[in-house]
Amino acid sequence: MKVTILGCYAATPRSLTNPSAQVLEIKNDMLLIDCGEGTQVQLRKNKIKFARIKHIFISHLHGDHFFGLPGLIATFHLLGREAPLHIYGPKGIKEAILLLLKLGDTYTNYPLLFHELESNKPECILETNHIKVTTIPLIHRVYTNGFLIEEQQGERKLLVHLAEEANIHQAYYSKLKQGKDVENEDGVLIDHTTVTLPAPPPKSYAYCSDTFYNEAILPIIKKATVLYHESTFLDAHVHLTEKTKHSTAKQAAIIAKKAEVSHLILGHYSTRYTDISAFKEEAETIFSPVLLGDDGKVFEF
Amino acid sequence: MKVTILGCYAATPRSLTNPSAQVLEIKNDMLLIDCGEGTQVQLRKNKIKFARIKHIFISHLHGDHFFGLPGLIATFHLLGREAPLHIYGPKGIKEAILLLLKLGDTYTNYPLLFHELESNKPECILETNHIKVTTIPLIHRVYTNGFLIEEQQGERKLLVHLAEEANIHQAYYSKLKQGKDVENEDGVLIDHTTVTLPAPPPKSYAYCSDTFYNEAILPIIKKATVLYHESTFLDAHVHLTEKTKHSTAKQAAIIAKKAEVSHLILGHYSTRYTDISAFKEEAETIFSPVLLGDDGKVFEF
Repeated sequence: MKVTILGCYAATPRSLTNPSAQVLEIKNDMLLIDCGEGTQVQLRKNKIKFARIKHIFISHLHGDHFFGLPGLIATFHLLGREAPLHIYGPKGIKEAILLLLKLGDTYTNYPLLFHELESNKPECILETNHIKVTTIPLIHRVYTNGFLIEEQQGERKLLVHLAEEANIHQAYYSKLKQGKDVENEDGVLIDHTTVTLPAPPPKSYAYCSDTFYNEAILPIIKKATVLYHESTFLDAHVHLTEKTKHSTAKQAAIIAKKAEVSHLILGHYSTRYTDISAFKEEAETIFSPVLLGDDGKVFEF
Repeated sequence: MKVTILGCYAATPRSLTNPSAQVLEIKNDMLLIDCGEGTQVQLRKNKIKFARIKHIFISHLHGDHFFGLPGLIATFHLLGREAPLHIYGPKGIKEAILLLLKLGDTYTNYPLLFHELESNKPECILETNHIKVTTIPLIHRVYTNGFLIEEQQGERKLLVHLAEEANIHQAYYSKLKQGKDVENEDGVLIDHTTVTLPAPPPKSYAYCSDTFYNEAILPIIKKATVLYHESTFLDAHVHLTEKTKHSTAKQAAIIAKKAEVSHLILGHYSTRYTDISAFKEEAETIFSPVLLGDDGKVFEF
C-alpha cells in the first residue's frame, strides 16, 4: 500500500505548496483522493500514469479539494482516454462538472460515471474483489466525507511442496487457498492449515479531511493501518477550530490513539505556519508514529 | 504598457508550461486576460499584487482559458478583498461560477460583477477615463472573443515656461492641455499649439486567442501597437487548423501584416512542439518584429 501526497496544504495553491490531493495505490488499484487546483500538474511531477486512475473520491466541494477536477477530466479526454472514470463526491458534483463541460462544448469520449453522496451515515460506495471503500461522515462547514479504503481479505499462501507431499491434486489448490479442507488422491481429508499459511492481514487507509474533532468516526476507522487526519492548526490556535470546523495536530493524534491505528499522517496545514515540523512534535506528545505529510512525499506500508 | 505572460501553451497545464493567462498593465490599470488552471500561482510567481486586478476578461469557456477562475475568486475572498471584481466573458460564465460558489457554500465578501457577452459584433464593454475595451469576435469551436484594449487619447503636454511667457493665467492651463485656444491676461487669443506639445499617440493591445484565421478582425485591430495572436500550429500542420479552429504562426503573421500592427506576440503553442523558436522563424518570413511569448516573459511598449 503506497500513498503519494500531491498536495496537503489548506486554502489556496501557492508557489511551493499545493491544495489537497493524494494517490493511494492499493492492491494494484490507483485511487485519487481529492483534487485541488493543480492536481494534474502534480500527477505529472510525481510521474503517476493518468490512465491508471479509474476512481476519484472527492471529500467535499470546497475549491481546495475540488477545483482541479474539471481540468483533469478535460485532460483525460485530450489524452484519448476510453476507460470509464468513476467519480464519488457530494451531491451537486455532477451538475457542476456537466455544466462546465457543456459550456466548453467539450464532452468526454470516455464514460464519466458519477456516484453522488448525501448520506450522513457510513456507506460502502465501492467494492471489488480487491478493495472496499466506505464513507466516513465528517463534521465540516459543508457536507463532507472521509473515505476508508480496505483491502479485501486475501487468499492463504499455498506451500506447494507440502501440498505435493500430501498427494493433493492441483485442481484442489485454489480451494486450499480459500481455507477449505480437501481430500487427497488417497481419499484422506487434508486440513488446509497443514499445507497453507494464513493470508497477510488486510491493510486499510482512512482519509479524514476536512473535519472538526469528531469521535463519532472512531468505530469506522478502528485499527486502520494508516490514518490521514487533517491538522490545519496547532494547539495554540485551537480556538479557531470551532468556527472553521478544522482540527489541530493534537486532536488528530488523540483520534489516532483512540482509534488504535498503526500510523498517523498529518496534513492540510494552514499556510500561516512557515515550519510544519511543529505539527509532528505536537502530535507525538500523544501518539507515535507520526508521519509528516508534505507535497511529493511517498509513504509505503 | 506592459504585458506579463503567465501562460501561453495550448490544451493542458504541464510541469513547465501553463495554459492561457496574461496581465496587461495599461495607464495604471491591471487587466487579467484569460485564466487557465494555475493562474493564481503564476500571479504569485510573477509577483503581481492580487488587489490590483479589478477586471478579468475571459475569451471563451474552454478549460485552458477559464478553469483557474473559480480558485482565483475564492482566493480573493480568503485574502479579504473588498473591492468589486468585474468579470467579462461568454454567457454562462455567471451561472458556472455562482454554482461552484454555492456548492462550496462560499460566497465572496466583495462584489462580484459579471458582464456576460453574447454579441457576434464588436462592442465596447468597458470605458474609463484611461482605457477602452472592445470585443474582437473570433472564430473558434465555441463562442469566443478577443479583446482590444486602447488607451484613451491623453492630454497635450503643457510647456509651462512658454505659457508663463505668453502671460496666460494658470486657470487656463487645463483648457490648453485639452487642445483649446485661450485668451491671455492681455486679452490676446493664444493658439494652444504654441505652448503645448501633442499628446503621445495612445497605445493599444489586441488579444486574439483562440481563433481560426479570420480577416474579419482586421478593421478592429488596424494599426494596434501590439497584437497577441495565437499560433497553435506551425505551417506544416496547417491542415489541423480547419477542424480545431486554430491558427498557424504564418497566419498570425499575415494578420499582423495586413492589420499594420507595430508588434506581434505569438502564443498558445501546441505542446506537440518541443522547441518554440520555430514559431518566431516562421512568422518572421512574413512580418517583423515578432516576439515569442513564453510563460513568465514581460514585454514593455
